Amino acid sequence: MTTTASYAAADWGTSSFRIWLIGETGEALSERRSAEGMTTAAKTGFSAVLEQHLEAMGASRSLPVVICGMAGARQGWVEAGYLDTPAALSEIVRHAVVVPDAARDIRILPGLAQRDAAMPDVMRGEETQLLGSVGALAGTRLVCMPGTHSKWVRVADGTVERFSTFMSGELFDVVSRQSILSHAVAEAGAFDGTHPAFVAAVAEAMANPGMATNLLFTVRSGQLLHGHGPTEAKARLSGLMIGLEIAGATTLAADAQGAIRGAVRAPVSLVASGPLAGLYTQALTAAGLTSELIDADEAVRDGLAAAARALWPA
Amino acid sequence: MTTTASYAAADWGTSSFRIWLIGETGEALSERRSAEGMTTAAKTGFSAVLEQHLEAMGASRSLPVVICGMAGARQGWVEAGYLDTPAALSEIVRHAVVVPDAARDIRILPGLAQRDAAMPDVMRGEETQLLGSVGALAGTRLVCMPGTHSKWVRVADGTVERFSTFMSGELFDVVSRQSILSHAVAEAGAFDGTHPAFVAAVAEAMANPGMATNLLFTVRSGQLLHGHGPTEAKARLSGLMIGLEIAGATTLAADAQGAIRGAVRAPVSLVASGPLAGLYTQALTAAGLTSELIDADEAVRDGLAAAARALWPA
Repeated sequence: MTTTASYAAADWGTSSFRIWLIGETGEALSERRSAEGMTTAAKTGFSAVLEQHLEAMGASRSLPVVICGMAGARQGWVEAGYLDTPAALSEIVRHAVVVPDAARDIRILPGLAQRDAAMPDVMRGEETQLLGSVGALAGTRLVCMPGTHSKWVRVADGTVERFSTFMSGELFDVVSRQSILSHAVAEAGAFDGTHPAFVAAVAEAMANPGMATNLLFTVRSGQLLHGHGPTEAKARLSGLMIGLEIAGATTLAADAQGAIRGAVRAPVSLVASGPLAGLYTQALTAAGLTSELIDADEAVRDGLAAAARALWPA
Repeated sequence: MTTTASYAAADWGTSSFRIWLIGETGEALSERRSAEGMTTAAKTGFSAVLEQHLEAMGASRSLPVVICGMAGARQGWVEAGYLDTPAALSEIVRHAVVVPDAARDIRILPGLAQRDAAMPDVMRGEETQLLGSVGALAGTRLVCMPGTHSKWVRVADGTVERFSTFMSGELFDVVSRQSILSHAVAEAGAFDGTHPAFVAAVAEAMANPGMATNLLFTVRSGQLLHGHGPTEAKARLSGLMIGLEIAGATTLAADAQGAIRGAVRAPVSLVASGPLAGLYTQALTAAGLTSELIDADEAVRDGLAAAARALWPA
């Protein structure tokens, strides 16, 4: 390595681990990714996983490390607690915890908690994406962060006011693999957000969210009675899950405690990467909403960089 | 056996098999139950399963048999097709198929199909429960048949006008066992429909069905932030699934093609057995609906008896 790293930044999720060495001007000097998420590292040891990747990247023994995500969960490395909403994103770093007895300076960022009796919610990792994407922006915006557990977040002038988690991604996964619908979607080909069955399903779920579990069954009955193919069935299943999520996220307007909707007039800030970016862009369009795409990988790296600047001022 | 059986009646589901020997006056002389449903019998042979049970019950070699359920599915014993809606329940028996090359007279009853482009649906087995419960009644009524795939059916003067299948039971099962919520509900104790968390969850899902996948996540976040126990979590999960189903079934009123709601002023006919009978009775009450309970086991036996009388008049 010719350029010297200033710090390392890691996004440590439930099932994935990513780490970057960051140079003096904030540029990523190198990157490593693995499947050693919290679930794996809880067995093999968090310190061992981290040091092995740092060594492979040629990091010095004194390089500091900032980490976000499930490494800070109770069942993670060191519990980093939660910052309660309303939460100023710039405050996250003040609640970072130091990993005790480590040979180097390692900080883990906290998650956010919404301690609401009726709508309790938590996030870990997304707060760092928010810090890196909309944390420094003025005004109010609605942020959609699709994934296994999608988050919809209302952020005003750098403060997270409210958020809601939707299990859409995980439900899509378990229903596709474990339910009677697995037969209907087996051997499905690739599809994207422009597939007519996807677009129609988004609209159907939005128009009648109460029929959600019936609409799911039509994935099977449509195949039995109308001969729908597996790709069409899978696109429909995906559209139903995402449409149901958008129906909920946008009807929070009617919720006296929520009123996320007020922010919808501005484009939805869509923090996503890979195929989900395209699916959600099309789904939001089908729902009559505009969106601006922010790369989720860049967002988390930028959030970790903002935290590092506050932790270790040059 | 001192009393002679007139026929045997079998309810052959996906994962269960039940058979009764029925006497001259319609009384059940004996009963056997096993887990040799369609899935098992498709491997071991339908004829072998049936004959083994008949022999164990001392049935004569010429005793006729009437069967409803998945034995008539395409992947079952002999495909019995579907009767299309609107379907007069008394017509079911006219579409029964004869099992070819059998040593005795064996008839399999067809299912019902709703060949609607937007809301395709199918049932197999429930049509026989309907025949045995509300098939001969005048007037219009809404029938709720809870289960792995719950059916809500509008029946007018013995004719099935419309029906909708909800995957509530299967979703409850896969989410309880395969999703992140499995940790929250592990080691849950018994609960019934009077559990406050169940009643509250029914009301929440009905009030805001679009938030369904968010409400599911609150089963986990409520445990993380409010310390809810596993029994409370499981009761909540059950209430959310059933409340979402009732929200959909009753808002079919707004569907120009459906209008199932019109029948709701009369008590809902609840065709159920076991714990589901209590849970749905309480859930319907929480939803502001009255219900009258019809035992599901008796309903299917009475339906098979009605079919037998038409097939083999004395």
